[in-house]
Amino acid sequence: MSDYSERIQELRSKMAAKGIDVCIIPGSDDHINEYLSEHSKIRDFLCGFTGSAGTLVVGSDFAFLWTDSRYYLQAEEQLEGTGVKLVKEGLPDIPDYINWIADNLSAGSKVAINGHCFSINKVREIKMAFHQKQIQLETGLTLAEDVWTTRPSLPDNPVIEHPEKLSGLSRIQKIDLVRQELKNKEATHYVTGSLDEIAWVMNLRGSDIPFNPVFHAFLVISLDSVSLYINPNKLTSSIGKKLSKDKIRISLYQDIYSHLSEIPDHAVVYIDPQRNNSILYSSIPSSIPKIEGTGLITSLKSIKNDIEIENIKKTMVEDGVAMVRFLKWLEEKVPSGSVSELSAAQQLLEYRKQSPNFQGESFNTISAYGPHGAIVHYSVSKNSDVVLKNKGVFLLDSGGQYLTGTTDLTRTIGLGPVNEQVKKDFTLVLKGHIALACAIFPTGTRGVHLDILARRPMWEHKINYGHGTGHGVGYYLNVHEGPQSIRLQDNGIEIKPGMVTSNEPGIYRPMEYGIRIENLVLSRTFGDSDFGTFFDFETLTLCPIDTSLIIEKMLSPKEMQWLNNYHEKVYSCLAPELNAEEQEWLKQKTRSIGQS
Amino acid sequence: MSDYSERIQELRSKMAAKGIDVCIIPGSDDHINEYLSEHSKIRDFLCGFTGSAGTLVVGSDFAFLWTDSRYYLQAEEQLEGTGVKLVKEGLPDIPDYINWIADNLSAGSKVAINGHCFSINKVREIKMAFHQKQIQLETGLTLAEDVWTTRPSLPDNPVIEHPEKLSGLSRIQKIDLVRQELKNKEATHYVTGSLDEIAWVMNLRGSDIPFNPVFHAFLVISLDSVSLYINPNKLTSSIGKKLSKDKIRISLYQDIYSHLSEIPDHAVVYIDPQRNNSILYSSIPSSIPKIEGTGLITSLKSIKNDIEIENIKKTMVEDGVAMVRFLKWLEEKVPSGSVSELSAAQQLLEYRKQSPNFQGESFNTISAYGPHGAIVHYSVSKNSDVVLKNKGVFLLDSGGQYLTGTTDLTRTIGLGPVNEQVKKDFTLVLKGHIALACAIFPTGTRGVHLDILARRPMWEHKINYGHGTGHGVGYYLNVHEGPQSIRLQDNGIEIKPGMVTSNEPGIYRPMEYGIRIENLVLSRTFGDSDFGTFFDFETLTLCPIDTSLIIEKMLSPKEMQWLNNYHEKVYSCLAPELNAEEQEWLKQKTRSIGQS
Repeated sequence: MSDYSERIQELRSKMAAKGIDVCIIPGSDDHINEYLSEHSKIRDFLCGFTGSAGTLVVGSDFAFLWTDSRYYLQAEEQLEGTGVKLVKEGLPDIPDYINWIADNLSAGSKVAINGHCFSINKVREIKMAFHQKQIQLETGLTLAEDVWTTRPSLPDNPVIEHPEKLSGLSRIQKIDLVRQELKNKEATHYVTGSLDEIAWVMNLRGSDIPFNPVFHAFLVISLDSVSLYINPNKLTSSIGKKLSKDKIRISLYQDIYSHLSEIPDHAVVYIDPQRNNSILYSSIPSSIPKIEGTGLITSLKSIKNDIEIENIKKTMVEDGVAMVRFLKWLEEKVPSGSVSELSAAQQLLEYRKQSPNFQGESFNTISAYGPHGAIVHYSVSKNSDVVLKNKGVFLLDSGGQYLTGTTDLTRTIGLGPVNEQVKKDFTLVLKGHIALACAIFPTGTRGVHLDILARRPMWEHKINYGHGTGHGVGYYLNVHEGPQSIRLQDNGIEIKPGMVTSNEPGIYRPMEYGIRIENLVLSRTFGDSDFGTFFDFETLTLCPIDTSLIIEKMLSPKEMQWLNNYHEKVYSCLAPELNAEEQEWLKQKTRSIGQS
Repeated sequence: MSDYSERIQELRSKMAAKGIDVCIIPGSDDHINEYLSEHSKIRDFLCGFTGSAGTLVVGSDFAFLWTDSRYYLQAEEQLEGTGVKLVKEGLPDIPDYINWIADNLSAGSKVAINGHCFSINKVREIKMAFHQKQIQLETGLTLAEDVWTTRPSLPDNPVIEHPEKLSGLSRIQKIDLVRQELKNKEATHYVTGSLDEIAWVMNLRGSDIPFNPVFHAFLVISLDSVSLYINPNKLTSSIGKKLSKDKIRISLYQDIYSHLSEIPDHAVVYIDPQRNNSILYSSIPSSIPKIEGTGLITSLKSIKNDIEIENIKKTMVEDGVAMVRFLKWLEEKVPSGSVSELSAAQQLLEYRKQSPNFQGESFNTISAYGPHGAIVHYSVSKNSDVVLKNKGVFLLDSGGQYLTGTTDLTRTIGLGPVNEQVKKDFTLVLKGHIALACAIFPTGTRGVHLDILARRPMWEHKINYGHGTGHGVGYYLNVHEGPQSIRLQDNGIEIKPGMVTSNEPGIYRPMEYGIRIENLVLSRTFGDSDFGTFFDFETLTLCPIDTSLIIEKMLSPKEMQWLNNYHEKVYSCLAPELNAEEQEWLKQKTRSIGQS
C-alpha cells in the first residue's frame, strides 16, 4: 500500500467517524489562488497529483480525481498505485464532479468540504445541485487537513514595500479610490481575500506563492477604517510604522472571520463572490446587506496609471534585451546540440537576472520543442526534456516579474528547415495577431467582441485554437489578472484605456508542433467622433518575430507595414541597450520584409 | 377633458375601488407578441399612443408613458392633452418603469398588472424589485380592460393550411420532433403560447395580427397527446377533420388555463419563460416540475429544412423581380417629381402583388428619403411624407410574406448627386456587409462573435451604428424570429446550418441621411478539418446594390470580387423572369466594377 492509499484510508476513517459519505478536496486555498504555497497543497499530499487544476473526490469505496486535458498524462502517471482513478474533465459525456456526486449519491447522504477553499459562488453551485437531490453539504469540516499531521505552516516570508515612485499612487490615495467606489456602490465595507488586490492597494509585495509576488492576508476597507489581517512577523518594523502612520490597523490573519461576525449593524458589505472563500461570506451576519460584483480593487488596478505605464514600457526594454540576447545565444548554440528545453529556459532566466529590477519568473516557462509545442500548457521536466535540433520550431512562452512591471511573451522560432505547413500556420497566427493589435473599437466593446479578429484568418482555412486570445496582466503582480479578457466567453467586462492584456493566438498540431505569437497590448484612446469615443491598442512587448517563418505573399500591404513598423520600433528601443554585435544581430532580425 | 383623460380617470376610480395605487399597462398581449390585434391595444385605447413599444403607468395623481427613442416624437404628439407624460427610456439617469415604481412607492403600496400581458420573466423581474421595497403586486386584475367597454373581440379570422409540399414536413413529423426534444430535456409536456411556434408546428397560418401570418391559440404537446386551444370558428371543417385525423384535440382558447391547472401529477413541463405569459405558468400546479429554456419549436423551426430552403430561394427570385421593377420605375419617375415616400412604398407593394404567392408585407415598409433615413425605425405617414428629388439617397427597408417564405431587404439608392461623405459611408457599410457575408466560422460560434465583422470597417473611421446587425427570419412567418441573432449582446445561441438571418449594417447621420444594406443569409456547412466543422453563409437576397455610391478604391480585390460575383448571380437568377427592357436595365445595374 502506497503512502497515498494510506492517507486516503485515514481520511476515510475520519469521514466514517463524522458520518460523511463523500469528501471533496480541491486544488485551491483560502484565497482562491491559481498557484499555492506548500501549506495549501492538501490534495497533492493526499493523492500525489501536483497539477494546478484538479479536484479529488473521496468516498468510502472510491476515490476520483477530476482534471482537464492539460493534465491527463501527468495525472495518470502520478496517480498510479494510489487507488485514485482519473476522471477526464472536458471529454464528451463526462459530468463535472458536482453533478457526478449529485447523480450518484442517494438522498440523505452527507458531503464534506472545507469551505475555506471554495469560492462563495462554487459553494452556491454545489448547494444548488445537492439540494435538488436532498444531499447535505457540510462546509465546516477539515477532515483532509486533519490527516496531514506534518503539514507545513503558512509561509512567513517578509513583505516588501512597493514605493509610490514605482506604484504611481500612495496607499492612502488607493484607499481613497476604493472608498469612492464603495460610495458609488452604496456600500460601507469592502471585504477581500484576493491577494493581488491586497498587494496592490497596500503597495506591498511578498513571496508566499510561486510566481505571484503576493502575501497571505485579508483586508477590510470601510469608509473610515482599514484593517489588514496578516501574520505580524511578515512586517518589518519600518513597514509596520508606515502602515500605522497611514492608519491601517493590523490584526491577526485568522481573526478576519471573528471580526466579520462582529461587523457593525449599519454596515453594507461589498464582496466579490467569485474570488473570496465561502467562509468569509458566511462569517458576516446574514442581517448585514451584501452587494456582490467584480472586486473593487480588481477593477481599479486593471486601469494602469501613468507611472505604471511609463515603468511597464521601460520594463519591456529590459525584458526585450534579455530576449534578444537569448535568441542570439539560441541561434548560435542549437547547432552544437548542447541546448535542451530545460537549459534554454535556464539561459533565458540568466539573461533576465541581469536586470536589477528582475524579481523572478512570472510563471513556469513553457520551453517546448517540436511536438511538445502542441501541448498548450507544456511544462518541461527532467523526464520530458529534449535536445533542440536545427530543424523545426521551438515555442517559448515566458515572462518576468520586475519591480517595474510583469511581462509575458511567446515567440515561435524556426531552428532550421521547416515545411510549408509550418510557415502557413505561422503566417496565419501572425495575421490574427496583427488584426487584434490593429483593432479600433468603441466604448463598450468587450473581449468577446474582439476575439474573432485573431481567429478569422485561420478560420478561413478551417483552423482554430482551444484557448482564449488574451488575459489581463498585473503590474509586478499576477500574470493572469482580471477582470478583462479577450475570449469567446462573454465576461461582461469592457476593455478600457489603461488596461494591459495579452494578444496570443496560436495553432497546435498534435504530435507535430505548436505555434503561438504573444505580445502584451495597452488599450488607449484613439479618438472621438459624432459616434462616440474609440479606443485602440499599443503593442508593448519588444522582441523580434521570426520573419523566416513568414510566407510574405499571404500578408496584405497593411499587415506587412505593421510588422515592419513593429520591428523598426523593436530595434530603435532595444539597440541603445545592446552591444555592437547584438545590435548587428537585431538589425538583421528586424529588417523590413516585402520590399522586393 | 379629452377622451383619454376620461378613460384614465375611470381607470383611477376602478383602482381606488380595489385599493390599488399604481396600474401598469404594457403594449403587449397574451402571447407576448411584437404586433397586436385591435383587441389587445389597451394601452392605445387609454392614452392614444400607438407605438410598438411603450408602457403606461397610472397612479392616483400621475400617468407616465415609458417609450424608447424611436417613439419620442410620436409619443409627444399623441400624448398631447391626455395628461399622460412621456418618460424617455434610454436617456442617461432615466430609470425603467419597474425601478421608478420601486423607488417612488412607499412600503405596503399595491400595484396591479394583468399577468396575461407580461412574460414569466418580466413578472419575476417586477416581483424581485418590488419585494425589496415591500410593494405588493397583484397579477390577476383587469382594471384597464374593464374600462374599455367597446373593446373589439379577438379576431376570428379563419386559419389556412400550409401544406406539406410547402412546409417540407407534416404536422405529425413536426410533433414527433417536439417529442424527441421533450425526451432530450427529460420533460413530458411542452406548453406554448408563441403564435409563430404554433403556426409552424401545426402547418397552419392565420391573419389575426398585422404582418405576422399567425392566429391566436395555445398549444400543449405531451408525449402522447396534442391539444390546440383555439376559437373553433377559425377552423374550416376540412382543417378540423385533418387535425382530428392527426389526433390533435381542439379545446376552447380560454380553457388553456383551467386545463393546465389539471395537468397530470407525473407531468414535467417544459416552458419558455421569455415568450409565455405569466398566468400560463402560474396556472400549472407548483408541485409539477418545470424546465425552462428557449422554446423547443423556436429552436426546431430556426433550422430550415430542404424544402423550405428550396422555396425560400424561389421566393428570393420573385421578391427580387419585384424589387428590380420597382428600382427601374423609381429611377424613371423620380425626376418628374411624382414619387413620394408613400407612393414609392405603394408601388413596390403593387409589384410584389404580381407574385401569386405573395400574401402581404412582412413589416411596415421603411421608405425614407434624405434625413428620414437617419431615423432607424422611420414609419412614413401622410404627415411626414415627402417627395423624392433627384439628389441624395433614399433608404428602403421592406419585405414580403409569401406562401414560400418571408423576405426582408434594405437598399440605399442614390437618386442623383451625392457628396463624398455619402459615398464613403456607403462603401464602409458595404465593406461591413461583405465581411459578414464572407464569414467562415467553427461550430459553437454565436452572433456576438460575428457582429464585429460588419462593424470593423466603420470602426476604423470612428463610425458605429446603434442597432443589431442581424435577426433570425421565419418561413412564411415572423420577419423577426429567434433564437439566433447577430448582435453585440450575447444570447448564448449558436449559429447553425439551415438558419436564415439578416445581414444589415448601417450608418446614420442625424438630419442628413441614413445608409443600410440588408440581405438575408443562409448558414451552411463549409467543411470539416482536424479542427472541427466550419460553417459559412450563402447570401439569399437577390437585388442589385447601387454601385454608383461606391468609392471603388476603398474596396479590396476580394470585396470587389464578392460584389461582382453577387451581381452576376443576381442577374443570372432574375433575368429569365424579366422582359427585355428590364433585363437591359438590370444588366447595367449589375455590371462588374473595378475592371479599369
